[in-house]
Amino acid sequence: MHIGKHISQLDTPALLIDLDVMESNLQRMAEYTRAHNLRLRPHTKTHKIPALARRQMDLGAAGITVAKVGEAEVMTAANPHDILVAYPVIGPQKLQRLMSVADGRGVTVSLDSVEAAQQLSNAATRTIGVLAEIDVGLGRVGVQPGEQLLSLVRAISSMPRLSFEGIAFYPGHIKRMDESARAALVELGVLLTGIKRDLEAAGFPVKIISGGSTPTMYHSHEVAALNEIRPGTYIFNDANTVACGACELSACAASVLATVVSTAVKNQMIIDGGSKTFSSDRSMASSELSFGYVMEAPAAVFSKMNEEHGFVDIRAVDHTFSIGDRVRVIPNHVCVAMNLHEQVYGIRGEKVESVWRVDARGKLQ
Amino acid sequence: MHIGKHISQLDTPALLIDLDVMESNLQRMAEYTRAHNLRLRPHTKTHKIPALARRQMDLGAAGITVAKVGEAEVMTAANPHDILVAYPVIGPQKLQRLMSVADGRGVTVSLDSVEAAQQLSNAATRTIGVLAEIDVGLGRVGVQPGEQLLSLVRAISSMPRLSFEGIAFYPGHIKRMDESARAALVELGVLLTGIKRDLEAAGFPVKIISGGSTPTMYHSHEVAALNEIRPGTYIFNDANTVACGACELSACAASVLATVVSTAVKNQMIIDGGSKTFSSDRSMASSELSFGYVMEAPAAVFSKMNEEHGFVDIRAVDHTFSIGDRVRVIPNHVCVAMNLHEQVYGIRGEKVESVWRVDARGKLQ
Repeated sequence: MHIGKHISQLDTPALLIDLDVMESNLQRMAEYTRAHNLRLRPHTKTHKIPALARRQMDLGAAGITVAKVGEAEVMTAANPHDILVAYPVIGPQKLQRLMSVADGRGVTVSLDSVEAAQQLSNAATRTIGVLAEIDVGLGRVGVQPGEQLLSLVRAISSMPRLSFEGIAFYPGHIKRMDESARAALVELGVLLTGIKRDLEAAGFPVKIISGGSTPTMYHSHEVAALNEIRPGTYIFNDANTVACGACELSACAASVLATVVSTAVKNQMIIDGGSKTFSSDRSMASSELSFGYVMEAPAAVFSKMNEEHGFVDIRAVDHTFSIGDRVRVIPNHVCVAMNLHEQVYGIRGEKVESVWRVDARGKLQ
Repeated sequence: MHIGKHISQLDTPALLIDLDVMESNLQRMAEYTRAHNLRLRPHTKTHKIPALARRQMDLGAAGITVAKVGEAEVMTAANPHDILVAYPVIGPQKLQRLMSVADGRGVTVSLDSVEAAQQLSNAATRTIGVLAEIDVGLGRVGVQPGEQLLSLVRAISSMPRLSFEGIAFYPGHIKRMDESARAALVELGVLLTGIKRDLEAAGFPVKIISGGSTPTMYHSHEVAALNEIRPGTYIFNDANTVACGACELSACAASVLATVVSTAVKNQMIIDGGSKTFSSDRSMASSELSFGYVMEAPAAVFSKMNEEHGFVDIRAVDHTFSIGDRVRVIPNHVCVAMNLHEQVYGIRGEKVESVWRVDARGKLQ
């Protein structure tokens, strides 16, 4: 019922996806991974929409990545050959559902413990691929390279219906690409090369070395031995992607259309979206508190939010806003913003061309 | 399909509501408002579930409060006599939907501008109550008492199909009840008494003076002239309610059941809920970063989160956790946590007694 409308006819808050920008982002990543012979398994947690996963695969992605089994279930609608669940799957309910997902397609799980591998093996009704997760500096999940990794790989390889495929990691400790980050990537390549050599010497072929992050995405070819990346945010980008230097503002495809609902307080306007619309994720950019970039007023500071109120400081803005005016705001973190919207609007220029339900939103399990 | 199960049979993460604690919270507020002759119009944004709104009204609430028209639409299922939309309703789409909500029940809107009043009057197909919103210190929405308020009330009263009912405010600047907060409430009472006197002298009867917040909720009777409160969080409470001194830990009804999925990093466990499960709302308690209270390990610090990963520092905990263990975590801010769950589980002891869909979650418009 919204297709063909001008965005001024949409109610607010509404999450808009600029289709030209999105397509350009998708093409850029497809070309990059092709040029560097990297396998692309995009993380669908960013968009949560099967039609967009399908588009990623049509452009050459070898498969997709999800965090939760519930996301995998939704993404079967995109008919992927291969799904990587980049999260340990623990407990009988999830494992049983995972086996249904694995009916007719390849499923790989990344995990970091013998317990998780044992549960997976016990539940498996067909062969499941396994990546051993290593910690390369974030301190979140992952075993230490060396003896810990070797004993995990040995355990995986010994268990029925598990096929050891390789290594996964997430260098989330690298927040921004600078000289020291580039040196860290070279060092990481040395580490990965050594891991591959040692594991293969021990009799465990390492087919896949899968990793990367949004800040490092276009530097993946500088990491020796890495042969798969699973970026998510690149499809839309967001204020944090800009802040970490991984894209230009013009490459941000997602924005929240919001309405000014109060101007009663001097030097401030209240917009009709707060933490329930954007999430309360803070900016990675700087110490300054900002919850998004106001496209119509770059000098405005989205300084505070409650659930339904966005506080925008307009002191430095050279024009005024009135009640009923609309602005578009690029969120700090688009993945969590997508999770808050029932549907989003694909726009070409200012016209609505697609309406997508965010089918995998709220799939916590 | 979950009713009658033990909570150990639920998959995680899952939001649990302790029904005995919830009922005791509801009773306490019902008794408090009855004892002090305060009208209770609970804000349903906390639970987002019509059955719980119905329970609040059965216990004596005069009506309910919502922030968005979409929430009002959902809450009509609870058959309220009266709905307060405590948010300016701007734009033709929302106003048209609001008129459908007003078909067969009283609707009141709080607003702070002549523009919002004008839009409401133009759209109204029946009489709509209006509360004039004043700013008492938060600096979010609301006109200043005095000339600004008088001219807003005069405008409202002059417009067709609007019925001026009184004043609304939200003292969100009072974060914690201490001596200075109690003095501020007395001062607020003096302000409200003067406002009522002045408006009535000008010919505008003030039937309702509606306000309050979670920290101040059980001190509402100390605010002279106040005759209506619209608390939300009291039904469940959360870690922030405890932190602001408004309830004991034992009065927290909502917790997230989570599973330990990784223990690879020393002194830390990763649970299967992060910002997509809890929201990234920070603690109001202190400078220490904490995203919730781990019931099984009060010395644990839920220090960091990503979307699906909760980082729990267990350095100070005197026992260990293994993969597959479960914990219950009281969230910082239960309203935004509820918004992230498709359904929640009402439990009696450790047995599931009710399963509720969170019908008003994601109703952004």
